[in-house]
Amino acid sequence: MRWSQAFLPVLKESPADAQIVSHKLMLRAGLVRQTAAGIYAWLPIGFRVLEKIEQIVREEQDRAGAQEMLMPTLQAADYWKATGRYDAYGPEMLRITDRQERELVYGPTNEDMLTAIFQGSARSYRDLPRILYHVQWKFRDEIRPRFGVMRGREFLMKDAYSFDLDEAGARISYNKMFIAYLRTFARMGLRAIPMQADTGPIGGDLSHEFIILAPSGESEVFFHKSWETLRPAEDYAVDANDAESLQAFVNSMTADYAATDEKRDEAREASLAGDLRQSRGIEVGHIFYFGDKYTKPLGFTVSGPNGDPVTPVGGSYGIGVSRLVGAIIEASHDEAGIIWPEPVAPWRVGIVTMRADDEASVSAAESLYAQLTAAGVETLYDDRDERGGVKLGSMDLIGLPWQVIVGPRGIAAGTVELKRRSTGEREELSVESALARLTA
Amino acid sequence: MRWSQAFLPVLKESPADAQIVSHKLMLRAGLVRQTAAGIYAWLPIGFRVLEKIEQIVREEQDRAGAQEMLMPTLQAADYWKATGRYDAYGPEMLRITDRQERELVYGPTNEDMLTAIFQGSARSYRDLPRILYHVQWKFRDEIRPRFGVMRGREFLMKDAYSFDLDEAGARISYNKMFIAYLRTFARMGLRAIPMQADTGPIGGDLSHEFIILAPSGESEVFFHKSWETLRPAEDYAVDANDAESLQAFVNSMTADYAATDEKRDEAREASLAGDLRQSRGIEVGHIFYFGDKYTKPLGFTVSGPNGDPVTPVGGSYGIGVSRLVGAIIEASHDEAGIIWPEPVAPWRVGIVTMRADDEASVSAAESLYAQLTAAGVETLYDDRDERGGVKLGSMDLIGLPWQVIVGPRGIAAGTVELKRRSTGEREELSVESALARLTA
Repeated sequence: MRWSQAFLPVLKESPADAQIVSHKLMLRAGLVRQTAAGIYAWLPIGFRVLEKIEQIVREEQDRAGAQEMLMPTLQAADYWKATGRYDAYGPEMLRITDRQERELVYGPTNEDMLTAIFQGSARSYRDLPRILYHVQWKFRDEIRPRFGVMRGREFLMKDAYSFDLDEAGARISYNKMFIAYLRTFARMGLRAIPMQADTGPIGGDLSHEFIILAPSGESEVFFHKSWETLRPAEDYAVDANDAESLQAFVNSMTADYAATDEKRDEAREASLAGDLRQSRGIEVGHIFYFGDKYTKPLGFTVSGPNGDPVTPVGGSYGIGVSRLVGAIIEASHDEAGIIWPEPVAPWRVGIVTMRADDEASVSAAESLYAQLTAAGVETLYDDRDERGGVKLGSMDLIGLPWQVIVGPRGIAAGTVELKRRSTGEREELSVESALARLTA
Repeated sequence: MRWSQAFLPVLKESPADAQIVSHKLMLRAGLVRQTAAGIYAWLPIGFRVLEKIEQIVREEQDRAGAQEMLMPTLQAADYWKATGRYDAYGPEMLRITDRQERELVYGPTNEDMLTAIFQGSARSYRDLPRILYHVQWKFRDEIRPRFGVMRGREFLMKDAYSFDLDEAGARISYNKMFIAYLRTFARMGLRAIPMQADTGPIGGDLSHEFIILAPSGESEVFFHKSWETLRPAEDYAVDANDAESLQAFVNSMTADYAATDEKRDEAREASLAGDLRQSRGIEVGHIFYFGDKYTKPLGFTVSGPNGDPVTPVGGSYGIGVSRLVGAIIEASHDEAGIIWPEPVAPWRVGIVTMRADDEASVSAAESLYAQLTAAGVETLYDDRDERGGVKLGSMDLIGLPWQVIVGPRGIAAGTVELKRRSTGEREELSVESALARLTA
């Protein structure tokens, strides 16, 4: 993409109404614009990041055997009445009346609807187990939306739902999602800690939150220092078809202490002594096992292996896809701007010409841009007629992993500067070497 | 995907409430389930088709230089009040009041909001031209939703918006979208005819509908017989950066008569004589040029090349992504079920074992499945414990382009049957040849 043709409006100043750093940076770097309280439009650069996050989430859901579908945003209120949640949910659920006076809600989650849909087709134990998911916009009418996309009203969530014949089966589904979550967050360069958590209004008796550490987080969290190490996704390799090794692996992943405020264990904390850490955290995922909470009120049974009716049991598994954009920035930024982990960066490389009026620089930059693009490297070429300093500032702000800085003096000697955004490291090298490095 | 593990509920009988063939087949083949009047959940097989259509739309938008972003589904009513459309739009716009008594609408389209967003950042003629688009769920509160996803209430639309400095520029943007549309529909195996059309509530003075022919279509259309030929996307190759050849190409594409009921030209029709054709058609795309209809009421100006303020002009460009799933089925089916054009098929190949209890067949099918999957060929393997006839019927119903039929007799001789769904052609060939054919 050429910046001169892009819709990529960066701001010099932080908007006054943004309180936390991710919100400020998302506005300044042109990722989003607020269009109503707690509702955002995603501009092209923000959309690119959102899509990459969504794609990683999707790949790991598919890998775990979950099947993607797509439920609508508006739901008939009847689904919620059938499970008894219509009155229980409270004013955060946006209730709507259509022109025919039918009651609808803007879905904040989909347990009720999906259980009914699945019930409509599942007849026998052979139709189980299944894990179904979708990535869809949800709405929660927060009384005080804040922190940008971190606590917005309209937000993008991946929510999966499992159906099993019995609790032992459901535990396998739960464990598959558990591993998928560890892999998902690790692939985004995040250290997400699974913590025992309260189940809240969803209900059930087994639940983990996945929490990343950030000073602006809304929860207070306590954990063994071992969680400070970022592990790569490859570390979470286990044969998910072997229930025993799956359970053993999940056990090993939850052996070290980690708990939210509501679930603290003072005895265990005391035993940790100097190994105990305390921080604030941001919830980016939440998994629940809730048994027959939704299947039972709907009278949903399948015929079991011996012909008797069995009520399926299940869980639900959420990831805050749009929230993750903010959470990643909270975890990865500096004074100058965002520092995108490579797998979610809107572009991998940014090219900057220091002097837009220097023909040799421009021609070298054009050629680099053409070659990188041809090699499939996602590249943003800042060809704007702006001062070099302004462009370097913009490039740091939007946080692409690699910058190629093309200046008249370097080009005269056949060199460019390659800057790594995360470390600030700069290296002067030949145009060919820079190209080789970036296409390797 | 193994059918035994898929959530792929096919129905033997057509649901009584479905009137047109695409709606019937979408229900029977397990693509969608209705969850409220005119609102549908997309089950996994339907979602796969929807995604493929969306991806073709996206690629052709990107190719035309449009930039993808994503606006929210709910819009502040203020955007509509600022352009004067809030009252004009009527009861099809779903109006919502949140818990703070703020007025929202579920967006039926995005001219008002996007013009305001773009206005917030565009300052000078250098910020033009731009074409921005998104693919997002919309809502129109149809009084009588019907025909399944063809005339639903919550529907997925690609809508693009162009901003130019003057009408000559806007015409280039319009023409780029015109070509993108021809390519988009051709890539889906559709013969979509661009027709001069009324502009309706969007306004403006230049508009084309893209219409595919189907007996169940809601519009009566009239056209030169030349439109009966399906042309491949490669036919629509023109250098979009050369405004003159672009215009010449669009002129050549609109030279042959084609008009909707509202835009008929009796004199021209008379001159066509035997070359005139009449049919019913389904609108799958609509493009508009509307000048300053939205920029003017918002007082949106940029500084022109000489410093004077200029009011940008623009157009909007819609494609009914979810409607296309139904439209393609209307255009491509037979008595036995759906016939997916390859580019939008949920899977390319289906494997059927005629006898699930024949070891040699099962082992051959498993091996074929493994090899096709490893080669990246999207394959559905019907490994259900069902009679062969039932499985063949299911496979015809869901309409994958190729079927590999594995039976005991054939396998004893080292052969399988390869069936092409569109023609019904069957060929007996060796397992290796079938594999080679499908991976070629």
